[in-house]
Amino acid sequence: MESKLPSVGTSIFSKMTGLANAHNALNLSQGFPEFDAPDRLKSALADYTTAGHNQYAPSPGVASLQQEVAALIARKYDQVIDAQAQVTVTAGATEALFVAIQSLVREGDEIIVFDPAYDSYRPAVELAGGKTIHIPLYAPDYQINWQDVSDKVTAKTRAIIINTPHNPSAKMLKQADFKALKALVEEHDLYVISDEVYEHITFDEQPHLSVLRDAALLQRSFVVSSFGKTFHCTGWKMGYCVAPPELAQEFRKIHQFVNFSSFTPAQLALADMLKYEPNHVDELAPFYQQKRDQLVAALNSSRFKILPSEGTYFLLLDYSAISTLSDVEFCQQLVEEHGVAAIPLSVFYESPCEDRVIRLCFAKESATLIAAAEKLCRL
Amino acid sequence: MESKLPSVGTSIFSKMTGLANAHNALNLSQGFPEFDAPDRLKSALADYTTAGHNQYAPSPGVASLQQEVAALIARKYDQVIDAQAQVTVTAGATEALFVAIQSLVREGDEIIVFDPAYDSYRPAVELAGGKTIHIPLYAPDYQINWQDVSDKVTAKTRAIIINTPHNPSAKMLKQADFKALKALVEEHDLYVISDEVYEHITFDEQPHLSVLRDAALLQRSFVVSSFGKTFHCTGWKMGYCVAPPELAQEFRKIHQFVNFSSFTPAQLALADMLKYEPNHVDELAPFYQQKRDQLVAALNSSRFKILPSEGTYFLLLDYSAISTLSDVEFCQQLVEEHGVAAIPLSVFYESPCEDRVIRLCFAKESATLIAAAEKLCRL
Ligand SMILES: CSCCC(=O)C(=O)O
Ligand SMILES: CSCCC(=O)C(=O)O
Repeated sequence: MESKLPSVGTSIFSKMTGLANAHNALNLSQGFPEFDAPDRLKSALADYTTAGHNQYAPSPGVASLQQEVAALIARKYDQVIDAQAQVTVTAGATEALFVAIQSLVREGDEIIVFDPAYDSYRPAVELAGGKTIHIPLYAPDYQINWQDVSDKVTAKTRAIIINTPHNPSAKMLKQADFKALKALVEEHDLYVISDEVYEHITFDEQPHLSVLRDAALLQRSFVVSSFGKTFHCTGWKMGYCVAPPELAQEFRKIHQFVNFSSFTPAQLALADMLKYEPNHVDELAPFYQQKRDQLVAALNSSRFKILPSEGTYFLLLDYSAISTLSDVEFCQQLVEEHGVAAIPLSVFYESPCEDRVIRLCFAKESATLIAAAEKLCRL
Repeated sequence: MESKLPSVGTSIFSKMTGLANAHNALNLSQGFPEFDAPDRLKSALADYTTAGHNQYAPSPGVASLQQEVAALIARKYDQVIDAQAQVTVTAGATEALFVAIQSLVREGDEIIVFDPAYDSYRPAVELAGGKTIHIPLYAPDYQINWQDVSDKVTAKTRAIIINTPHNPSAKMLKQADFKALKALVEEHDLYVISDEVYEHITFDEQPHLSVLRDAALLQRSFVVSSFGKTFHCTGWKMGYCVAPPELAQEFRKIHQFVNFSSFTPAQLALADMLKYEPNHVDELAPFYQQKRDQLVAALNSSRFKILPSEGTYFLLLDYSAISTLSDVEFCQQLVEEHGVAAIPLSVFYESPCEDRVIRLCFAKESATLIAAAEKLCRL
């Protein structure tokens, strides 16, 4: 059978985790925490399943979870949304992104994405019959030139996908970016898909500038978030999408045929967690900032150039003082010979990228971070 | 925003469950069990989450679950498959159907479906740029005329979607159907998507004729099943797809961008359940046959004509001796005035269907079945 996605192979995350396991390396590649979900969340899951909440949830989500998400948005972003009409719970942010793209993209549509781009955007757009238009950003600051973006807008442009805090660059969009974005999408009547899965992981007192803060921008946006990133349970595959009612309705039409509804006891458990331990969310940024600082300090004596991490649980390292290998080859060497698995950045670009930069995930125990840094300092 | 799915509204299942709740009616509409998942399964879920298995599973599924599925297939259908290469765990059978359709269907392709058809087939095909070609089957026996099917095959035909045991008709495909299907797909080089979510719920000693029994047919098939139906946990949204390695590879390319992986502790718990309580699967058919028989007996004195249920947890009733209302109006009246929620069959047809038939779900406690039958006997 000819492939619908001829250019797609196994995801880089599956590949590097596989190599890490095969070589018994420290796995700082795929983004997932080495530590566990909070006890309250785990025991709530156990309690709800034991108590018999094991049948279909309503397709848009359990009402209590929709409400707690709306309450969090009110508290954090000072925005009042209609929980029932605007919040849809999904099987992870991956499903939310996929369904948002399916809702918007028609045959021939163009969707602007910024490289390095998360690996699911392009195949999702292509499966919907659209085409991604790539705007490459480069190390060290991955700055968007909004004139470039404006130049790429055509009559076929349908939407712009943004991601802040950004994976893999660990950068955040600033006020000026949002101003330019808003002017552009309003001028050309475009939609926005805003991937904000790391919304609660931001450092150095920099506020996360969510689309949710801006009612007018939200009018034309799908905002995607992840319970897995926030509550250290990436394997639960729980996320959500917030959109204005009209867009949420289209999103739900498709969601109901993609997975209908999400894991019922997990929805109830997450609602409790948000309600009874709201400080978990508030403490996430300092928790990860301490990890970032620990890894940065441990790498200080290395020959890597450390790029600033403003948010997410990723840190970029420039290895150009160490090796002339391509980043893919360098990561191969790292995992095979040095016992550390990392992610090469060039795989997130459509056109060749010569930056010599790799990504480390620091959602790991201190001992792992220290051990990995020691190995890296030997290079 | 114009809709990608203009003809789709809220699913009939969400609608009728909503009406059942609003009118405090006995809900025999949406298909889900009133009883709970087995204790071992629930406590295994609790144990695996407590023990910290809360991060990403491998995208195709946890190895132990893939192996237990393959073992079940070997035991029940006498077919040896490669667990690692052929079994992909999904967020429910809904995701499996959606991804199988996305893997196969290209712009302009035609997909043959039999009406009454499960409500997700058509929108999933349309989102992939294809078109469903509908072959209507009618009460009381919903017999397929394979010459009709053959007449509908064109150069654009890509696949045939079958569903056995069939929801909503409660019929099973017979040996002769499989013979005709196989001849047809081999002659025209078509693929098969086989929705077998009720594979273990079959009555009166009639064996389920899975595509999995036929190695040659499996070569061109995606076979979809559901842990939710088998283990009374529809709210977990866990299912799987079995396909030959080459098709499974295409399936996985898309699955990784639709939800990446499925709920990790649930995968581990289901693997244990299959391994340590294999008789659960074997006892499912007699368990549901007893419920079917109980409902049929309780309805015997009613004015409904009871159609034979060969499998699934559904029973069809012909109400033409009772009312001349359309089935949609009749179901509305039933839930509002008689306190019983059922599903009208005409909503599963592309062209108007004049059959006066409704569907009841008998995956309910005895008391509920008896109470519903009493109400229905009053009509
Ligand atoms: C779904 S696996 C990828 C996890 C992740 O978001 C990352 O490593 O960037
Ligand atoms: C996903 S809700 C529908 C449940 C079901 O399969 C049915 O009622 O037919």
